[in-house]
Formats: sequence, structure tokens, C-alpha cells
Amino acid sequence: MTFYLIGIDGGGTSCRAAVALPDGRILGRGKAGAANILTDPETALQNITDAARAAFEDAGLDPAGITASRAILGVAGHNVGDAVHYVKRRLPFAVADIESDGLIALQGALGYKDGAVAILGTGTIYIAREGDAVSYIGGWGFTIGDHGSGARIGHALLQESLLAYDGIHEGSAVTDSVLSEFNNDPRDVVDFARLAKPGEFGRYAPRVFDHAEHGDPVGLRLIKAAATTVDEALDVVVSRGSRTICLLGGLAPLYRRWLAERHQPLFVEAEADALTGAVALAAARFGSRPEVSA
Amino acid sequence: MTFYLIGIDGGGTSCRAAVALPDGRILGRGKAGAANILTDPETALQNITDAARAAFEDAGLDPAGITASRAILGVAGHNVGDAVHYVKRRLPFAVADIESDGLIALQGALGYKDGAVAILGTGTIYIAREGDAVSYIGGWGFTIGDHGSGARIGHALLQESLLAYDGIHEGSAVTDSVLSEFNNDPRDVVDFARLAKPGEFGRYAPRVFDHAEHGDPVGLRLIKAAATTVDEALDVVVSRGSRTICLLGGLAPLYRRWLAERHQPLFVEAEADALTGAVALAAARFGSRPEVSA
Repeated sequence: MTFYLIGIDGGGTSCRAAVALPDGRILGRGKAGAANILTDPETALQNITDAARAAFEDAGLDPAGITASRAILGVAGHNVGDAVHYVKRRLPFAVADIESDGLIALQGALGYKDGAVAILGTGTIYIAREGDAVSYIGGWGFTIGDHGSGARIGHALLQESLLAYDGIHEGSAVTDSVLSEFNNDPRDVVDFARLAKPGEFGRYAPRVFDHAEHGDPVGLRLIKAAATTVDEALDVVVSRGSRTICLLGGLAPLYRRWLAERHQPLFVEAEADALTGAVALAAARFGSRPEVSA
Repeated sequence: MTFYLIGIDGGGTSCRAAVALPDGRILGRGKAGAANILTDPETALQNITDAARAAFEDAGLDPAGITASRAILGVAGHNVGDAVHYVKRRLPFAVADIESDGLIALQGALGYKDGAVAILGTGTIYIAREGDAVSYIGGWGFTIGDHGSGARIGHALLQESLLAYDGIHEGSAVTDSVLSEFNNDPRDVVDFARLAKPGEFGRYAPRVFDHAEHGDPVGLRLIKAAATTVDEALDVVVSRGSRTICLLGGLAPLYRRWLAERHQPLFVEAEADALTGAVALAAARFGSRPEVSA
């Protein structure tokens, strides 16, 4: 019986899918909305299915084949509690494994070589592989983790806007921009924040980087504080042996110049993207390509 | 027709009520669970009603009189959006006004004198009155405000426990105590935090103060950071003219020694509690006692 492989790269902002032959050759790609299985599993499930369907359509394949396919999903928040089991039971695929966004990104970025990836997007997670040892650092989600993430930077900006409104901290152009967006009414900021998902906070992060680059004092303070959290996590990665680090995620290009001098010589570019990594893992685990261990 | 006055002091940890004669003389008091109208309005409504009923029973009055009574409620989060209107429409009283926990506390602590109160409990809010001018600082709720609050301190402790688990920050006895409480499994910490209400985070705050007092390095760092946020807010209070500050709330006695030297001479003890302040406001506004302005 014919079957296809599916790779899924699910993040807090969008979810991408690729459909491939059993040997891992990619036939088509598709995209849908956010897939954060921890904060919103129902939406994640819908978007995973939508992205897979879009990939089948992109490849000119009948989406009915989705139910016979074998999938590797890399998702943010994978390492947290029961959400994985809940989502896994409800996936539309014949066989599926849920892995961290870190693992599929590492597979894409480094192949089977040693090293680490720092995923700096709506969330943050660090994954290091040295020989057979794979270790995860961070990635605990927005509520009490994901330091330095876009969601945390956006959250910090909204906080600073209220502190500026109250005269507790000095405001600046970037906090002014938030307050005017919310009609200079802090209650509107609070009402937004109370219901905001990580991705909604994260949409403010590029604005903070942009203002920091132009010398805005609040922007500078927030980005330096966020970069410190990333550098602290990278120190752990280095202490575990990694000498090659690939910065990934939407904020990676914005972050690089703000990170500590001691880490700059370690940074390398990715060989391929996380979606390609997910397909490679699917081919090794469920397809016709033998698993290659490090 | 006979009616009673009701004063309500609703907080993130508990809700207290007093029933009084139209001249403000208190007849009975009662207590129920948390009343945070912002984060959990349904529970707040239930606990407000339960506390009022307990006060009537304490006074030997028929609780049926609640529906004819006139109430002032001081609640955490009062200054935020539509939650006030939602709760106000559903209260069981004949007439009611919702005020901030800050205002009823100030009324109780200072009477009609000038000065300010800093409410340091599950949440934080500062309220200053100088002549006719009343100003609020902070009090925006847990999500993006309430710096220095018990909820924020507890939240910070859980964060530090995960950072210690990952080796990103040094751990200590206080982070060890959290990790062992959660079976040394960070996923259990995350699962708890994801669903925790501000009061549930806040229950960890006394533990942090206790460890700080014994020199625990993480406890010291978190309490010093929290005290800085309180001192920053007190600077604003002072800049608006207050020379008398009353520290209130469950964390007030724990906080005092950690606050800046420059603020120590300003601190005074409260004349009466917030519940008495709520009854006094009810007597002035709805009762037989004329309103006294500053």
C-alpha cells in the first residue's frame, strides 16, 4: 500500500507542513495558522490538519491520503504535560510522533552533526546534541518560561507602557506607540493583555527591536534584558559541550547583534529548515531511509 | 423602610463583609473566599454574596435583608474595563457602588486625612489623596501589572525553579523546595502555573520572604527586585505630595524592612481596616452620616 510521509513544523505564529515520498523526497508544502499545543490545542489540531491538506494540494495529491500517511510533528511546547497525549490521539494521520520544535530544527539545521540550535521565535527553546546525548534547555512555554521569546518581549513592552503611564518608569517612543494604539487608556491595554495569546504578545517584539536599534531607551533596556536571558541559556549549551550554535526562529536575525561577544564565533548558518528536518526524521523513522544516528 | 449598610472588602485571597446600621455602626462581620472581579468574576460574585450572608448571620439578622441593603464594595482590579459593570449588574444588593480596594483601605487607614496607602497583597495598588485630588498608581492586575505583589513574587519563584532546573540560574533552598514539591518534574510546575490564579501564585510569596530573611540567595534576589518595584511606585506617590504612607495588605509587615531608607520615615500605622473604610463610605454615601470631604 502506498503511503506518504508528512513533516509538520508547528509554531506559535504559523504551522507548516510538507508531504514527501517514503524516501524523504518532498513533493509539496503547505501552511496554516498557529499550532501551540500547550496554550490552544484545539486550534493547533485544526491548523496541523489544514497545513497538511495544503501540502497535499500543493503536490497535486488527493488530501484523502492524509489518513494513510505517517508523520513527524515538531511543535512548540511539546515537552509539557498531558497536552502532547491529548493532541497525539486526535491527529488525522495513520502514525505520528510528536517531537519538539527544537529537535526537528536541529535535524534540519545540523543534519546529524554535533552542535546546538537556539530557537528564538514566539517561544524560546535550546537543544544540544553531542554524540548520543540530546539535551533540552528552556522551552517551558510562555507562562513561566520562554525567556527572551517574542511573547515575553511583547509582554514586557505592554508592562512598560503601563509603568510609563503611571510615571513609575520613564516612557519613550516605543511605549508612547503602544499607549496611543490603545487610545491612551491603560484599561484597554489590560483588556487586550488579559486575553492575548503568546503570538499576540509576540507581534510587538519586532517593534521593540526596531526601536532599540534606533536608540530608544526603553527598547534598549528591554532588548538588552532579553538578550541576557538568551546568553545565559547559551552559556549552558556551551557548558554541555556545544561549539557550534545555529540561531533559528523569526527573531534570530534581529537578535544576533545583541548577543554576547563570547558567543559570536560559535554561530553558524542552518543547512536546511525545520520542516525539512521533520521530513528527514519521518523518512528515517517511518520511511524507506535508514535511521542515521550521530 | 429599614435598610442596612454593607461594606465589602474583596481581595485576591479572601472577601470580607460587614453589615451596619444606617449611621455606620457595625453589627456583624463575615468572610468568604477570593473576590477578584477581573480574573474570576463568577467566583467573586459568589464569595461577595457568601460574605454578606455570613455578616448578617453574625449580627443575628435575617439574610433576606441583603436584597434591601446598600453597599460599598472595594475590590481588587476595580479599575479595569468591563468587569466592573458586569459584576455590578449582578450584585444582590438594592444599591451598590464598586470602589477600588485602594479607596476603602485609604478611608479606613487615614480617615479623611491626606496621605497614601500602598496595598501589598496578592495584588498591588497605591492610592494617594491630597486635598480633593485622589490618584491611583498601579493596580492593573496580574497579567501585566501588580509588580511586587504576592502573585508576582510567587510567579517569579516558579520561574526561578525552572531556570535552576535547567542550570541557567543558580538554585537555592527555596527553588529546591518548589522542585521537590513538584516531584522534581518541571512539567508539573508548568502544568500548575498554566492554570494558577493570582492567589495560587501568591501563596508562595511568604516562603520567598522567609528564605530571604535567612539569607537564601534566590530569595534575596527576588525580594530585593520586588522591593525595588514598590520603592519606585512609592517615589511616584511622594512626588505627588504624600508625606504619610500606610503600608497595607498581607505582605506589608513582611515588606517593610526591605523598602528603601528614604521611605521609612513616611510610614504610619492604619487607624482602621479597609472593611471599616468601606462601611464608612457606605454610611456617608447611602446612610444617615453626612459625607465628609477632605
